[in-house]
Amino acid sequence: MNYFTRITSSPKQILAVVVFLTLLVLAFSIKAESESPRLVSTQDDIAEMRLAIEKPGSFKTKFEQQKRSVDKQMEQAITVPVPADGGGGYTHERHKKNYKLMYQAGMLFQLTQDKKYADLVRDMLLQYADLYPTLDVHPKRKAGANNPGKLFWQSLNEAVWLVYSIQAYDFVLPNLTEKEITKIEQGIFRPIVKFLSVDSPATFNKVHNHGTWLTSGVGMAGYVLNEPEWVEQALYDLDKSGKGGFLKQLDELFSPQGYYNEGPYYQRYALMPFITFAKAIETNEPERKIFEYRDGIVLKAITTTIQLSYNGLFFPINDAIKSKGIDTIELVNGVTIAYGLTGDTGLLEIAQIQDQIILTGDGLKVAQALDAGKATPYEFESVAFGDGADGTQGALVIMRQASSNKATETDSQAVLFKPAAQGLGHGHFDKLTWQFYDKGAEIVSDYGAARFLNVEAKYGGRYLPENKTYAKQTISHNTVVVDERSHFDANLEKGNANHPEHLFFVNDKNVKLSSATIDSAYEGVELTRTLALINLPEQDQTLVIDVFDVNSKKQHQFDLPVHYQGQFIDSNFALNANDKTMSALGNENGYQHLWLKAQATPDAGLARVTWLHDNGRFYTQSSIETGDSQILFTQIGANDPNFNLRNENAFIHRVKNTKKHSFISVLEPHGEYNPSKEFTISATSKVSGLAHVDNDNVTAVLITFLDGKEWVLAYNKQSVTKTKKSEFSLKGKKYKFSGQYLLQKITK
Amino acid sequence: MNYFTRITSSPKQILAVVVFLTLLVLAFSIKAESESPRLVSTQDDIAEMRLAIEKPGSFKTKFEQQKRSVDKQMEQAITVPVPADGGGGYTHERHKKNYKLMYQAGMLFQLTQDKKYADLVRDMLLQYADLYPTLDVHPKRKAGANNPGKLFWQSLNEAVWLVYSIQAYDFVLPNLTEKEITKIEQGIFRPIVKFLSVDSPATFNKVHNHGTWLTSGVGMAGYVLNEPEWVEQALYDLDKSGKGGFLKQLDELFSPQGYYNEGPYYQRYALMPFITFAKAIETNEPERKIFEYRDGIVLKAITTTIQLSYNGLFFPINDAIKSKGIDTIELVNGVTIAYGLTGDTGLLEIAQIQDQIILTGDGLKVAQALDAGKATPYEFESVAFGDGADGTQGALVIMRQASSNKATETDSQAVLFKPAAQGLGHGHFDKLTWQFYDKGAEIVSDYGAARFLNVEAKYGGRYLPENKTYAKQTISHNTVVVDERSHFDANLEKGNANHPEHLFFVNDKNVKLSSATIDSAYEGVELTRTLALINLPEQDQTLVIDVFDVNSKKQHQFDLPVHYQGQFIDSNFALNANDKTMSALGNENGYQHLWLKAQATPDAGLARVTWLHDNGRFYTQSSIETGDSQILFTQIGANDPNFNLRNENAFIHRVKNTKKHSFISVLEPHGEYNPSKEFTISATSKVSGLAHVDNDNVTAVLITFLDGKEWVLAYNKQSVTKTKKSEFSLKGKKYKFSGQYLLQKITK
Repeated sequence: MNYFTRITSSPKQILAVVVFLTLLVLAFSIKAESESPRLVSTQDDIAEMRLAIEKPGSFKTKFEQQKRSVDKQMEQAITVPVPADGGGGYTHERHKKNYKLMYQAGMLFQLTQDKKYADLVRDMLLQYADLYPTLDVHPKRKAGANNPGKLFWQSLNEAVWLVYSIQAYDFVLPNLTEKEITKIEQGIFRPIVKFLSVDSPATFNKVHNHGTWLTSGVGMAGYVLNEPEWVEQALYDLDKSGKGGFLKQLDELFSPQGYYNEGPYYQRYALMPFITFAKAIETNEPERKIFEYRDGIVLKAITTTIQLSYNGLFFPINDAIKSKGIDTIELVNGVTIAYGLTGDTGLLEIAQIQDQIILTGDGLKVAQALDAGKATPYEFESVAFGDGADGTQGALVIMRQASSNKATETDSQAVLFKPAAQGLGHGHFDKLTWQFYDKGAEIVSDYGAARFLNVEAKYGGRYLPENKTYAKQTISHNTVVVDERSHFDANLEKGNANHPEHLFFVNDKNVKLSSATIDSAYEGVELTRTLALINLPEQDQTLVIDVFDVNSKKQHQFDLPVHYQGQFIDSNFALNANDKTMSALGNENGYQHLWLKAQATPDAGLARVTWLHDNGRFYTQSSIETGDSQILFTQIGANDPNFNLRNENAFIHRVKNTKKHSFISVLEPHGEYNPSKEFTISATSKVSGLAHVDNDNVTAVLITFLDGKEWVLAYNKQSVTKTKKSEFSLKGKKYKFSGQYLLQKITK
Repeated sequence: MNYFTRITSSPKQILAVVVFLTLLVLAFSIKAESESPRLVSTQDDIAEMRLAIEKPGSFKTKFEQQKRSVDKQMEQAITVPVPADGGGGYTHERHKKNYKLMYQAGMLFQLTQDKKYADLVRDMLLQYADLYPTLDVHPKRKAGANNPGKLFWQSLNEAVWLVYSIQAYDFVLPNLTEKEITKIEQGIFRPIVKFLSVDSPATFNKVHNHGTWLTSGVGMAGYVLNEPEWVEQALYDLDKSGKGGFLKQLDELFSPQGYYNEGPYYQRYALMPFITFAKAIETNEPERKIFEYRDGIVLKAITTTIQLSYNGLFFPINDAIKSKGIDTIELVNGVTIAYGLTGDTGLLEIAQIQDQIILTGDGLKVAQALDAGKATPYEFESVAFGDGADGTQGALVIMRQASSNKATETDSQAVLFKPAAQGLGHGHFDKLTWQFYDKGAEIVSDYGAARFLNVEAKYGGRYLPENKTYAKQTISHNTVVVDERSHFDANLEKGNANHPEHLFFVNDKNVKLSSATIDSAYEGVELTRTLALINLPEQDQTLVIDVFDVNSKKQHQFDLPVHYQGQFIDSNFALNANDKTMSALGNENGYQHLWLKAQATPDAGLARVTWLHDNGRFYTQSSIETGDSQILFTQIGANDPNFNLRNENAFIHRVKNTKKHSFISVLEPHGEYNPSKEFTISATSKVSGLAHVDNDNVTAVLITFLDGKEWVLAYNKQSVTKTKKSEFSLKGKKYKFSGQYLLQKITK
């Protein structure tokens, strides 16, 4: 199975054996037959799979479907066009189709032993071997970028091509003549490996997902072409120093819990080369114990990706396309490999939702387990993922209501709280932002990325200019903006160099509570936010309580937006609408993209804004107003001459000329609007009052309901032990509690 | 079964028998047992249903579900509150719940013979009998309206209460004592009948859906309380002249094909009393042959309601809540009764989609047939429904692509073309408007009604002021507006007095084609529109071709809006966006609600606008531009101080100072945007040219595709026979065709 397991004793020995093996491969191409395939699926896997496609079951169904698909594609002539188009364009998409087709045909050859599939892969690779040496860098490469490809506009895609195509080549090796092998390796694989490694050192060595694809492709090619040096370089940097490379990427790109610092959208993307190359390493060199590396970080990366979702879709923080979810092919592969490793039947429920069997050895295990009805509910958890390589650079916090521990549960709730680190180049300037999910939908929302993936007419399908001018800016998120400037003044280096401090996280049955603080987003300003998702069974009510404390040395303007999804219904204060003409709210930092639809100055006391989501539920945010603060109503769309942005709505709490302010609010889901069945219930809020007590150690929020019942949530502002005593006074009465918080009904 | 079938010979005889029967009922309350129930379900039905609930099946499942629901509600004390609230408010909803609960409990009594259900109905009716005589008209009645209720704010709801409650009473009569009967009839049923008939003559006699509910309630009460006079009044007007009443409503409110002149939203609502009372008439007086009346108009009304939908939702023309669809309870009852009458297995597929078995005799038939797997595909048709009582007041035209003849087919297409009559008070000023549906979704859209049904905070849940100022106005639709004035100057009387002339309708396999004209919407201006939904199998392409000819004596400004659903992607002409400030497009007639986002003056030739729908498909409208016409890009939301309107987008083709103009365009669905699977295909239009030939008799549109292929669609502008010869010249070549149209590929 493994051909250089036993040859690692000394450099000299290695050299001798490598030379010998290389000569052997070149001399007897038939040798390859006994060793192939040797990456994600093994010869033993193939033997099992050949049996499985003879018996009814979901594996056979998938096999037949893929065979039909490949057979249909084989009716067309092979097309290996000269690269011309950027992402989404014809040649780009054709080369993508080619590597997928080669991979699938290669696997079909292994399963059916029908030579026509091997011949397709051979013929296509021979065309690539003719084409590749003639190519310069891609004509549509991004200006100024140091990562051009040749087949594709960027080396990232080129590496993806290699990851698929080297597996296809591995599958069909037994069917190739020596001459064909030489031609293919000399014409395409050796040049592309060279291009992606020694000729692209910056990208190859970078601790970044592009680097992962490049090292994975090169490392896998190393196993197939019998070039252990490539594997070493892939694992430890081109100079084998360990400063870059795959292992360094596993060390640094994930937190100890397996959170990827760019957020779930890129986490699932990054996952693919990690799990694919890890699996190939395990096949070839099990003694590296890659799946045990860093306390099982590869597996944690997979399960964390699952956790970073609500109702099947990933939390769209940072640069993210919002329709991406757990059925993404990368996570299908991840769940499949994770099940192969662990046999955890909860993963089968996720596989059920993904509804995509893959044709690998682990895919067969998943298919057979699903056919046998072994799936059990996957547990979605409330969890704080520490951020950064050591897990101490802030955190990404998920709070869920108990009813939500089912993947497809659409009547569950989640709060995403983001005192996380910057997340490198795809990160947004959104320290301490939050989102709220209920009844299957995003209610308090994150814009995600401004991008129409691969739509040529929209800025070539790349990130739109508005991604930088709006989507990354602080005002496009649900967190405090000081003086209309973004966090870190939108300076990436400054963002990367600083992070919030995650203070505490409580995960009790009816109380999920978390707090974090940052004093580096703005000079001289400390931002501290505490969010609680609480359940009051007696009131049959869940609530999100939000306490955002701002402390600064000098006077500033503080804006706290709520980007909501749905139709505005009502406010308990007068709106002053800009009826006939409306203007952009500001000139820069994202404000230039917001139309100011209306402004209001609510009276001191409780201000309410109610909206209705398409999910049929009403949402009311009740907030404590001082009487001189404003609420601004905005819509995205100003300074957007090409209509690149979605026209979504927000309201912004604004206080001016202030040094210290606490934004206190409660978000309350309520009622139902059912125009189809023609009923409307509980369209108005039940919260009638809010009060806020703040002393040196404790913050308390008092919530009064229309029926007169009162509840208090109090918490110690610092992380404390379970026995630590705290106290506060409310309406002349003293309250004491132990531990982090108190949730109590106030008896009258 | 029927107790006054044989007593219609002479008034004297009737009187004698009525007196006798009344005495009989009063004397022996047990008598009722043998006659009850006698409305929608009969004693024979009940016997069958009692057997069915003993056997497994969907009927038993529904029965048990309803029993659980009623049992749960019976844990609460009976509440018959003094009326206080308008629609959506507490007392309104409580009285609605009460009549539904009484109806369900009454049926459960019949099925289980468990007296507790009968006692619930009795006790609740006794409370109503105490309350009703104390009531004046409702405190929340609409100011100035002549249709107040007592239990509810309008007599409409009061009549609905009666329709349900009289059935409940009928169910439990066998369980009532003479004293209880007297109390209930004297306290509630006789007063409410009096209130809804002789005390509400205007509404009762009105040929209108309110009138149908009133006559149905009163007529059904007539059967149960043995008051044939009430039945006569219900059928023939209070004065029995036949000028009003139920039969007159059947004559006038439906076209000969069963189209209800207010459109599908009100058609399904109107349906309920028609089918319920008709069924009660059939039970009691089959000799009236009510289901054969007017060539089976009741049945046609039901099947037409089904046809007036796409992907399960009704076409939202006129005042319509857009989420209403074929699973509405009224149509569940309609389909159930229609299946009982016809045994048409296609209806079972609709029942399957509705997924709501009802507990009636016909409901049992549907349940048993569904259990037996008898459902067959329901045929959705391309059809022109003639409008008005005689079917000649214009038409509502549905054109479907062949693939769409399945109810749940989401990849089918439909064009709705509306050269229909005004549709009374709920009609919109939208002559010749159209909508387009594709891949399950509305693509070229109709705003529907501006209303949040029963949401108190939104204008009491009634039609919003913006319904009149925007949703009813012409500019909110996809049809020509002259000089920024609405059709008929938005004068309802003028609208009701005039209607378009429907010229022709062609329903061939690859060509659906229809044309209509109106010269009364604007004085001195003739509007003629021809719409075609064509399929070009060779191009693998469907297209909508739109030819809108405007002819006037004087110079005017003509606006033709396209209200689209989705995200703007691209245009092939420069947009001049209002970046920093934007203003309302106009001052009145709906224009005051449109923000002018951008304007453009495309060069002469082909102008293209492409947008992307959430369904993942791109849509391009290509139009012929003269070089001096404008395209304006708008968004709804100006002059909307309470944020009552949805912020949807449109673009408006505008020509100024013109007497004669033809707006020629082609709408082309294309490609796929799949960010989840990360691919984008055919994001750009394949139409490269459009030309237009117009002679006295024939209009021809030439469409050129990027691949050089050319197709011509030509049609004779008048309705002609299949043998009628027409001819036209195109690019110097003469073409001849027979019949209405020619669709031909031009060979080069």
